[in-house]
Amino acid sequence: MAHREPGLPSAYAAAADRFRRIGVLGSVQSLLDWDTATMMPRGAAAARREQQATLAAIAHRETCDPALGDLLERAEAEALDAPQRANLRAMRRRRLHATAVPEDLVEALTRATTECELVWRDARAANEFGRLRPHLGEVLDLVRRKGEAKAATLGVSPYEALLDEFNPGLPKVEIDRTLADLERELPALLRLVLERQSSDPAPALPTAGPERQHRLGKALMIALGFDFDRGRLDESPHPFMSGGGDDIRITTRSTGEDFVSGMLAVAHETGHALYEGGLPEAWRWQPAGDAVGMAMHEGQALLWEMQVARGRDFLGFLAPRVSGELGVAVTASDLVRGIQHVNPGMIRVDADEVTYPLHVLLRYRLERSLFSGDLPVADLPTAWNAAMQELLGVTPKTDADGCMQDIHWMMGSFGYFPSYALGAVAAAQLFQAAERATPGLRQELAQGNGRSLLHWLRQNVHAHGSLLSTVDLLRQATGRSFDAGALLAHLRRRYVDRAG
Amino acid sequence: MAHREPGLPSAYAAAADRFRRIGVLGSVQSLLDWDTATMMPRGAAAARREQQATLAAIAHRETCDPALGDLLERAEAEALDAPQRANLRAMRRRRLHATAVPEDLVEALTRATTECELVWRDARAANEFGRLRPHLGEVLDLVRRKGEAKAATLGVSPYEALLDEFNPGLPKVEIDRTLADLERELPALLRLVLERQSSDPAPALPTAGPERQHRLGKALMIALGFDFDRGRLDESPHPFMSGGGDDIRITTRSTGEDFVSGMLAVAHETGHALYEGGLPEAWRWQPAGDAVGMAMHEGQALLWEMQVARGRDFLGFLAPRVSGELGVAVTASDLVRGIQHVNPGMIRVDADEVTYPLHVLLRYRLERSLFSGDLPVADLPTAWNAAMQELLGVTPKTDADGCMQDIHWMMGSFGYFPSYALGAVAAAQLFQAAERATPGLRQELAQGNGRSLLHWLRQNVHAHGSLLSTVDLLRQATGRSFDAGALLAHLRRRYVDRAG
Repeated sequence: MAHREPGLPSAYAAAADRFRRIGVLGSVQSLLDWDTATMMPRGAAAARREQQATLAAIAHRETCDPALGDLLERAEAEALDAPQRANLRAMRRRRLHATAVPEDLVEALTRATTECELVWRDARAANEFGRLRPHLGEVLDLVRRKGEAKAATLGVSPYEALLDEFNPGLPKVEIDRTLADLERELPALLRLVLERQSSDPAPALPTAGPERQHRLGKALMIALGFDFDRGRLDESPHPFMSGGGDDIRITTRSTGEDFVSGMLAVAHETGHALYEGGLPEAWRWQPAGDAVGMAMHEGQALLWEMQVARGRDFLGFLAPRVSGELGVAVTASDLVRGIQHVNPGMIRVDADEVTYPLHVLLRYRLERSLFSGDLPVADLPTAWNAAMQELLGVTPKTDADGCMQDIHWMMGSFGYFPSYALGAVAAAQLFQAAERATPGLRQELAQGNGRSLLHWLRQNVHAHGSLLSTVDLLRQATGRSFDAGALLAHLRRRYVDRAG
Repeated sequence: MAHREPGLPSAYAAAADRFRRIGVLGSVQSLLDWDTATMMPRGAAAARREQQATLAAIAHRETCDPALGDLLERAEAEALDAPQRANLRAMRRRRLHATAVPEDLVEALTRATTECELVWRDARAANEFGRLRPHLGEVLDLVRRKGEAKAATLGVSPYEALLDEFNPGLPKVEIDRTLADLERELPALLRLVLERQSSDPAPALPTAGPERQHRLGKALMIALGFDFDRGRLDESPHPFMSGGGDDIRITTRSTGEDFVSGMLAVAHETGHALYEGGLPEAWRWQPAGDAVGMAMHEGQALLWEMQVARGRDFLGFLAPRVSGELGVAVTASDLVRGIQHVNPGMIRVDADEVTYPLHVLLRYRLERSLFSGDLPVADLPTAWNAAMQELLGVTPKTDADGCMQDIHWMMGSFGYFPSYALGAVAAAQLFQAAERATPGLRQELAQGNGRSLLHWLRQNVHAHGSLLSTVDLLRQATGRSFDAGALLAHLRRRYVDRAG
């Protein structure tokens, strides 16, 4: 491990040792999150909160320790190679984020978001935005204060400071340019797709019991290259990926009647898992060894879900396996037509590949207005419905299916949403680049063989960890920074030309 | 919570806060242990060791922090009530154990025991004691050094310092007196039992698949009073209990053909779990809120396994449930005769109720000789086999079934074994006292109703946590300190008189 070799500059090595401990603590927190969602008896919720709060407090204290600040200062003056310098940059950024926010604000945010989440569950179930409003307002006020505190330290605007939590160092101007391109092109593209599709209704796909769906999920993961010696598949109410390194756990929800959404969720979470599994082992537990940001993380998930698992090459391979695992006959043609059916709906997580970025654009637009104060929380439902009509041509019947559907804002996660749309863009660029570099890639996918694609991603994305910035990584791998053109071209090819 | 009320002496309160954090960290370590044995993908073993080592190092550092020592000193001079004073005593003892051993010795022990365990697994499988010998010798040397380091601090002999790790404050003279009584009486009692039993061979009990065995385990846990809102049952190679408070997880092994050993293991682990679940909530995460020691912990396990689940009252209730869950006919009479069959064998964990304490006495005798140096490690196999012949009348054919069967010494756990025999003694005393205090207790058990027994244990054992010493607790609950007479009387009644 580079930062462990003898003769290393001592302040840097000491700082790396401390971050290693913080990284290990983070992996334990991640395991507890997984356990909470999959295994924990329900009476243990309060004890689990204690455990998480204790680990978070220890990690926070370690990160904010003034002695660590001294080490980082001294390390700056030491002779470091380029990767070590990248690691040091990542360490400093972590510490800036941690030290910028006063203790009492951290506690107030934890309390407010915990309460807001609880109220949100009930308010959404009862479709009563009025009950949620004051709690969301309080969270927003505190998030604003957090943004302001970080802005001063990071030397950016308050909202940019929030963006930086999820995509360190990614300039807002890149995000805005990319998302503006999508916003300009996608609504017209959607209308064209719907026009072409009007004579081709979605086929009815068969249903299957939870155990068969779970087995299909495992078979799909193996086909995509997931290593079950280093991870698991379990069931939870909402699919997610957790862990990293040699212990990567994903979940799915196999209880619904519809096997397709569970299958695509597995492909999505497997994409997250493959990224984590390919991060550089020499930098494990170090900031430079982490994923470069959530845009790239979602990009890896969407690459396997959208580019691969929704594509007719791979679906041709998958159809007989689906039939076998589910014990019902499904033709490749029906599977493609079902999965590639575009249907503007209310719910982001159920959205097809064409409308998905529009759901995200809407949230990015609204959260900036909420954050700036231009949009009062009380007016959120009206603004939401108007934007849905404008971007997707539909209007939610309830706030539960509208502005209350996502948990992100309740958790105080403002600044996360753009990652989804940027991820879709990066996924299209990376798949295009992989295809250019790998003759026969589509034929391999048609045989259920994702190894060449994974190999390319390992070399060009995963292995870099955070040693390169998101933009540098993307430029090195594809020749360009974020470029909505690749996603738009892909969508036109698959959904207008009906190829791919 | 007593130690959280306003106006509390500040040094005590500050120390309690720190021990609370250490207690929470301990509960996380316990969850990781559970996960390692039940859920973890096998490739994650190295990462798991990192996580455990990091948590252990943090907990150790917190316990040894000189500032905590100052707080404890100052707390001594504060006005504390009796429970707070008991908590303070428990805190000081924890700190003494943690600070007594120099850092390099702790690390050497961790390395040596990890290596010894690894070698032991292979050496046992190959029945090659010679391969194990040097590793066990090294562990023993380091354990001796640990004992000596602690002896100086605790003011006792080195071996007593080891005993104190598992049963804080329990005098060795109590242990020796109790075990000497068993050693004097049990071999003759065993011969008498075997004589009486000679005309009554064990019936062949039916077998069942793992899923049905697992279901039977859950049904048994519910009958014994386990709350599945606060815990789980899972599968692992070796049954154990893990966790505490509102998250208590036990495991069993349902893969064998023999449902009886799995069923009894579930009863045993459920006993551990009921103890943990009944510890005083007001003292959660505090030293005084922990189990008083391993003798009492094993006592609770053996009370439910031996006194209850192997008794004809409860087995009469259980037989039709066994038949139902396993889908095969089992009569109450066959179940009693099968489970109460005494058969001197080589393996402690498979032993019946009469021979079990003899296996433990043998280990207690040999580990003291090993520790003192009277018995060289090279002579262990011979000494083991001679003691087996003397105490149980059988001689192991292999060292794998002899002195290499248990993991305890490989882990450096010298001083643990007496807890098993003391536990069997305490279980008999406590069951006797509960019976005296609760008219109709046996009739309730015959109806599968353990509520009165649990209620008595909650009040007389569990609720005290570590607020009383083991001996004081036992005396308060039963009128006597450890007294082998109750266990011997119980064994005579059940196995000679064939009642109970």
